[in-house]
Amino acid sequence: MKSIYFDNAATTQIRDEVIEVMTYALKNNFGNASSSHSYGRTSKSLVEASRKSIAVHFNASPGEIIFTSGGTEADNLALRSAVRDLKITQIITSKIEHHAVLHTSDQLQKEYGIKISFVPVDQNGELNFEVLTDLLKMNEKSLVSLMHVNNEIGNLLDIQRVADLCQEHNALFHSDCVQSVGRYPIDVKATPIDFFAASAHKFHGPKGVGFAYIRKDSGLKPLIFGGEQERGYRAGTESVHNIVGLEHSLKMAYDNLEKESAHIKGLKKYFIEKIKTAIPNVLFNGYSGDLDKSTYTLVNVCMPISEEKAAMLLFQLDLKGIACSKGSACQSGSTQSSHVLAELLSDEVLKYPSVRFSFGIYNTKEEVDYVINVLTELTGN
Amino acid sequence: MKSIYFDNAATTQIRDEVIEVMTYALKNNFGNASSSHSYGRTSKSLVEASRKSIAVHFNASPGEIIFTSGGTEADNLALRSAVRDLKITQIITSKIEHHAVLHTSDQLQKEYGIKISFVPVDQNGELNFEVLTDLLKMNEKSLVSLMHVNNEIGNLLDIQRVADLCQEHNALFHSDCVQSVGRYPIDVKATPIDFFAASAHKFHGPKGVGFAYIRKDSGLKPLIFGGEQERGYRAGTESVHNIVGLEHSLKMAYDNLEKESAHIKGLKKYFIEKIKTAIPNVLFNGYSGDLDKSTYTLVNVCMPISEEKAAMLLFQLDLKGIACSKGSACQSGSTQSSHVLAELLSDEVLKYPSVRFSFGIYNTKEEVDYVINVLTELTGN
Repeated sequence: MKSIYFDNAATTQIRDEVIEVMTYALKNNFGNASSSHSYGRTSKSLVEASRKSIAVHFNASPGEIIFTSGGTEADNLALRSAVRDLKITQIITSKIEHHAVLHTSDQLQKEYGIKISFVPVDQNGELNFEVLTDLLKMNEKSLVSLMHVNNEIGNLLDIQRVADLCQEHNALFHSDCVQSVGRYPIDVKATPIDFFAASAHKFHGPKGVGFAYIRKDSGLKPLIFGGEQERGYRAGTESVHNIVGLEHSLKMAYDNLEKESAHIKGLKKYFIEKIKTAIPNVLFNGYSGDLDKSTYTLVNVCMPISEEKAAMLLFQLDLKGIACSKGSACQSGSTQSSHVLAELLSDEVLKYPSVRFSFGIYNTKEEVDYVINVLTELTGN
Repeated sequence: MKSIYFDNAATTQIRDEVIEVMTYALKNNFGNASSSHSYGRTSKSLVEASRKSIAVHFNASPGEIIFTSGGTEADNLALRSAVRDLKITQIITSKIEHHAVLHTSDQLQKEYGIKISFVPVDQNGELNFEVLTDLLKMNEKSLVSLMHVNNEIGNLLDIQRVADLCQEHNALFHSDCVQSVGRYPIDVKATPIDFFAASAHKFHGPKGVGFAYIRKDSGLKPLIFGGEQERGYRAGTESVHNIVGLEHSLKMAYDNLEKESAHIKGLKKYFIEKIKTAIPNVLFNGYSGDLDKSTYTLVNVCMPISEEKAAMLLFQLDLKGIACSKGSACQSGSTQSSHVLAELLSDEVLKYPSVRFSFGIYNTKEEVDYVINVLTELTGN
């Protein structure tokens, strides 16, 4: 049976070269990076060399890169400490953020009674900058949390504009950059972002490791307390093999960015053309049908088909060996539909099935052809 | 140059078989365990099979095993939620606990104004059960946090007695079992422990993964918020390769426990005999010189030598290729001396250097001979 992986926004296949450096570290560098003997110093130097290499990609200082167990932990670290330690009284966000931001904000509201203000988005997921500006003018100590690339509809945020606005109004700016790190350049000197979150498994690295960018002298304090690892920002023995895997996958992502992003963008363009011909009444959720306003890595399509066909669509795609998603992976275990699409679409459109196809470096045009053929068959067009 | 690793309490060399299952998962099971397609289901089944296998070792239910990024996160999860969600007003602990418990308790005291009550320990690190009982009789909602095996001096806690006492007085019982999981049996049906923490890299597994045992219906809530992973207890994409590595290393530890613990205990016994002969005035910190009252994996020895010799001791051991520790690895990056020894020893004894030697499955008697010879030379006996 064919096996086609079009769910690269959920996670990605690890590069062989990354597995190699990880396996080498597992075999040869087992020292605890906090130990002062030679085994420990070797691990420590691997961790610090990784930190340095990662920082360079973002024009950051090594001390601003804090390793975590992934993007979710990095989001939690920034948001919680901003409220608890920096005395933020308002989180400004949107209803189409990842649950790592939304559920954490909800929890902080329960614990600290902070205000959560939502910047409205239109039916395309476009942010209302006027309301954002008005919210920033309120007499509150605010943190803005808006993601760089939306994980479900692929919309690109103008982070420069948001960062400048936040700076102008003395607000902190956090961004969940889990879908953009390794795929788009980010320069923290040019863009006054305070905190961002990244996760290695989104750019062909290992699961269970990521990092928080934390601007120097921010005053953030840990989420996890204990030892003095990560310059006191994050306790717990460093996962050396995962950290070198993160470093190597990020380096490969940025070293090959031009060539690989062109390949992936080509696939998305091809997919859009083909599906428009095959299913003329297909709808593109958010800006995902627009190559300029959305990430080159994904499309999210709504297919106006009958209820019976809709009910079986994802199941049938799976049977045909096609891996894709109806929303973010973090939700697909649950029976709930996407909170992002619920925010954008009318009840009329929400009745129809929406599917996210997300592309990566290992995908081919032939796979797009196959998927379009299957979709044509399943939707009866 | 010889290279001898006697710091197995800080971390352990990963078993080759564990590296193999991890490398296989990295190559072949990259699906996001929350995705509903075949790639996701394969990862999900690996995670759930691991959970089930791990639970069996402790006579627990699979749902009571929550994967974390390590022991420190597991400690933080239990302590923070106990205070925040279960309304604990007093943490009863001791001053010789790991910083993952002590610093977390301090932080919770700052945030919630809870009381921290320390059960006194004597010069051997022996817990005063009378005071513990008196503290439990106070009119407070209490959580007791006491570690099973002390990471610096190796003292074994009578967890059955503590657990029974806690149950009798309606207190919750948490134990940092990072040094005992994989080395001692724990049965949560026989021992009414509510929460415990474990870390794979202490039993020849990978760094960056561990688990919290959380008794069913405890009411605990997450430390990290976001997706619904880990039955809602812990958000973040599951680190599949680390989880299968954890499972495999734990299984190998318990499958080979009798043989391997006999080997390691033999090394400790041999080390004690040899060092007593070589350095007659050597002192054993805590109960670490007593084979019944301390773990079979470590000794912590104080060597009454001159100040000049003391200053260079660890450095010289390192030069001779011997990896050992003056305290826990989590502190050795700092210049502070051990908070555990500071609690037990007189200022007079604290002036002398103390070194922890901790043994593992890959160590040999020949290595003990070599180390004793080097120690004899360095201490001038």
